[in-house]
Amino acid sequence: MTRAFYIGRFQPYHNGHQYVLERIAKTADAIIIGVGSAQLSHEPENPFTAGERILMITGSLKDIGMPLYVSPIEDIKRNALWVAHVRSMAPPFDLIYSSNPLVMRLFAEEGVTVESPAMYARDLHSGTEIRRRMLKGEEWEHLVPPFVTSVIREIDGVARLREIARNDCDGENGRDDHSL
Amino acid sequence: MTRAFYIGRFQPYHNGHQYVLERIAKTADAIIIGVGSAQLSHEPENPFTAGERILMITGSLKDIGMPLYVSPIEDIKRNALWVAHVRSMAPPFDLIYSSNPLVMRLFAEEGVTVESPAMYARDLHSGTEIRRRMLKGEEWEHLVPPFVTSVIREIDGVARLREIARNDCDGENGRDDHSL
Amino acid sequence: MTRAFYIGRFQPYHNGHQYVLERIAKTADAIIIGVGSAQLSHEPENPFTAGERILMITGSLKDIGMPLYVSPIEDIKRNALWVAHVRSMAPPFDLIYSSNPLVMRLFAEEGVTVESPAMYARDLHSGTEIRRRMLKGEEWEHLVPPFVTSVIREIDGVARLREIARNDCDGENGRDDHSL
Amino acid sequence: MTRAFYIGRFQPYHNGHQYVLERIAKTADAIIIGVGSAQLSHEPENPFTAGERILMITGSLKDIGMPLYVSPIEDIKRNALWVAHVRSMAPPFDLIYSSNPLVMRLFAEEGVTVESPAMYARDLHSGTEIRRRMLKGEEWEHLVPPFVTSVIREIDGVARLREIARNDCDGENGRDDHSL
Amino acid sequence: MTRAFYIGRFQPYHNGHQYVLERIAKTADAIIIGVGSAQLSHEPENPFTAGERILMITGSLKDIGMPLYVSPIEDIKRNALWVAHVRSMAPPFDLIYSSNPLVMRLFAEEGVTVESPAMYARDLHSGTEIRRRMLKGEEWEHLVPPFVTSVIREIDGVARLREIARNDCDGENGRDDHSL
Amino acid sequence: MTRAFYIGRFQPYHNGHQYVLERIAKTADAIIIGVGSAQLSHEPENPFTAGERILMITGSLKDIGMPLYVSPIEDIKRNALWVAHVRSMAPPFDLIYSSNPLVMRLFAEEGVTVESPAMYARDLHSGTEIRRRMLKGEEWEHLVPPFVTSVIREIDGVARLREIARNDCDGENGRDDHSL
Repeated sequence: MTRAFYIGRFQPYHNGHQYVLERIAKTADAIIIGVGSAQLSHEPENPFTAGERILMITGSLKDIGMPLYVSPIEDIKRNALWVAHVRSMAPPFDLIYSSNPLVMRLFAEEGVTVESPAMYARDLHSGTEIRRRMLKGEEWEHLVPPFVTSVIREIDGVARLREIARNDCDGENGRDDHSL
Repeated sequence: MTRAFYIGRFQPYHNGHQYVLERIAKTADAIIIGVGSAQLSHEPENPFTAGERILMITGSLKDIGMPLYVSPIEDIKRNALWVAHVRSMAPPFDLIYSSNPLVMRLFAEEGVTVESPAMYARDLHSGTEIRRRMLKGEEWEHLVPPFVTSVIREIDGVARLREIARNDCDGENGRDDHSL
Repeated sequence: MTRAFYIGRFQPYHNGHQYVLERIAKTADAIIIGVGSAQLSHEPENPFTAGERILMITGSLKDIGMPLYVSPIEDIKRNALWVAHVRSMAPPFDLIYSSNPLVMRLFAEEGVTVESPAMYARDLHSGTEIRRRMLKGEEWEHLVPPFVTSVIREIDGVARLREIARNDCDGENGRDDHSL
Repeated sequence: MTRAFYIGRFQPYHNGHQYVLERIAKTADAIIIGVGSAQLSHEPENPFTAGERILMITGSLKDIGMPLYVSPIEDIKRNALWVAHVRSMAPPFDLIYSSNPLVMRLFAEEGVTVESPAMYARDLHSGTEIRRRMLKGEEWEHLVPPFVTSVIREIDGVARLREIARNDCDGENGRDDHSL
Repeated sequence: MTRAFYIGRFQPYHNGHQYVLERIAKTADAIIIGVGSAQLSHEPENPFTAGERILMITGSLKDIGMPLYVSPIEDIKRNALWVAHVRSMAPPFDLIYSSNPLVMRLFAEEGVTVESPAMYARDLHSGTEIRRRMLKGEEWEHLVPPFVTSVIREIDGVARLREIARNDCDGENGRDDHSL
Repeated sequence: MTRAFYIGRFQPYHNGHQYVLERIAKTADAIIIGVGSAQLSHEPENPFTAGERILMITGSLKDIGMPLYVSPIEDIKRNALWVAHVRSMAPPFDLIYSSNPLVMRLFAEEGVTVESPAMYARDLHSGTEIRRRMLKGEEWEHLVPPFVTSVIREIDGVARLREIARNDCDGENGRDDHSL
């Protein structure tokens, strides 16, 4: 019984994630997905809430054919505690997939090997590119699963992204920039 | 499409929860379960981690026959922010079930009605009673779904509860009692 | 130009506070009021939000005849930092009034003397007694300024207090007791 | 009885804010001012404490002729909770003025319309420009109400800004840059 | 090269601790002492700051004859992260001494055995008993190393303890009891 | 009896620090070293944990010939509270050495003068330069005390720095950049 752990920010969840997870599903008995930076939303780099991202992921993987756990992981600004934090918020797992050097190093120092998942058309399938297209009014729907498109429509996500990405023409915005 | 939200601490998940959720499933199209006090574990009142509780719940409801979302909800020690916190960590929902007066009041002040779920043999089916039985070495397995028993065995949960429930014979424990 | 600082929790603001502040006003040129435990609300001991308490205080002192500053002070669970925290959230002050031994000690260690304000019918004029009367359905309006009664009516405060004071008959409330 | 809410960082409070608030006063019955990023001070972008900013604002608006509430609002690094946070720290309000797209969006998602206040000589009347002038030793006093100038003198504010704006020639400063 | 870790709250450091550490010194090459609940002070149960406790310990062990590391450990209200937290704040260690069941369990789940140190006249040599004697005006100096007595005199520690232990005769103390 | 306080981030501790502290030792009776940004590690700018840095410092100063206290100081993102925070975590001190303008200003506002320590070959002896050399594979060992080299070898520090400094080729790293 192998439970595999995969973590990402999923801003938004896209076909690249779907491709990776369908491959992981070929070798694991259960999949645990950590939704990173769960506390962030309504930011140009992080427009969607953890709950919205959980909805996108679970709906897109409803036919994965094995137990699926999707758990929000809030940032803890102390790298030395991050692995223990992830372990406390996710069911026990045996295998980890990530291509983030920091995530790989933090688990490695705990004696856990992290596998780098195969990627698929990396240049197109990145949250950065998809958010750029949403802002510019370019095509993005073909880069995400259909269910994700429906969620983003339900929550009026593109309008949200465009509004929060506007420059504050005032500068006296009542919020410190570093807090956005 | 009605998504129903139910919240509990699930220390541990038991037949009373299962009974309530199977009834909720008769009227909802999807179920969202919030695992409260997610940051707590290894305490006499909160022995299990959020990840362990997520595992118990998801396994016990694998035949629920509709989309299921199980999301850890960390305590936020500010009641006035708690509803917004829950909404950010859970997919959008239309219906809430809780019998906690505070939860009911907090949602009510947001204009949301909370329904009190029917209960089942309340005296037996409470986390407090089950933890008491675990400590005393009495029967508890018949009060929880079989999958929960297997999880608690996998994580050696009863031994954990007994050890952390022992009084600190020292009193100089390096931890403030209020932090335990 | 003497600015006097007075701190309380004001759950709710009552005639005892009003009595003390009217006396302080006789000797000071400006009054700064710190609303303590500002982050707490919707609890039996702390039913009202900081904003609601600020409203009660400012309205009751609108004829005080000198500059009035009412600032919420969130708890900081580190006593050694508390004085610096208060100073950062309040305009500069020269005089402090408090009858709380901890507050007196913390300022004293910073070399500041704290004066104990004269009290007025202490047994009746305490937040504890007023909250008890609200819960029991006894008379309480005569113990607070008329403006406070109007605020508590506007926010439906007595009903809030009664609901949150009910015992959770479930015990699986999704919130750790220590977080309430 | 209309209470209007206006939020800014007020680093420092200047004639542009005064202009906006005097206009808001023509249509509202009471004014609530939120002092954003209240926890920040002693930074090049945020030189003044919340208490110092409260002092500047209250003194400059002492003749506004209606109830005035000035409440510090600490940043909460979770946008989805920010509106609930503001509501808990401020008296209840009906109208909001802001020109910050994020603030507008966050309230809009709560079903509240935010009005953009008329601005006055925007290029000159910005905290950024005033802090730049303070650093360069240029004229700034004519851009703020006289009371603000007296507060900044009382707290030796320009010297503070210049010192903290100096580069750390060491680089081993005992503080992480991201914490400054 | 064996580094041994010992943790306590040291409110105050007493002869029982000294006895234990002198025995540990017989078998280890270096000693690391964690000062638990480091963020707490000015409380009846936690009167002394972390810095004051570090001073007491280092002075009492100046002749221990091996490298000594005394590191404050702030409470982290998440037991599942506590071991990682301790490891990040202390030099690497091989051996742990504690008689606190929770500490023992948390390290055990990380695969580390914790040794229970021999105790010495437990009833007398406890922080609780020493603080009780300080409050009652009874003899306590013979229960702590001479250097500890001098530190407590230097900081006027007994007077601090007595003041903060007084009941708040007001009840409107501007601090929530749970924050003390 | 003069206790001198010196603070730095010590990422890593190097000969420049050693030079400064040996000079401070000529005039003080005891030295207190604050390890700043103690909560940070596994970052390109902050690769080492507080515990690792404490080990480097204590070992390099074992012959300093006077009481030495090395205390981790976690960042507190509120400058107005920082001095009180430092005082609570360090033994009482009379003299402060720092060349950081913010540290100097914060203590100055508390009425404490901060002395700027003499520096030694500043361009070479900076953490930034040493980390750059570690990344580039250039010589760095001659810039730090021999004990520091042995600690960095023991913890495989150079490999850690190189791994975490690699760009995340994914961009979906499950961590918000601002949290790294």
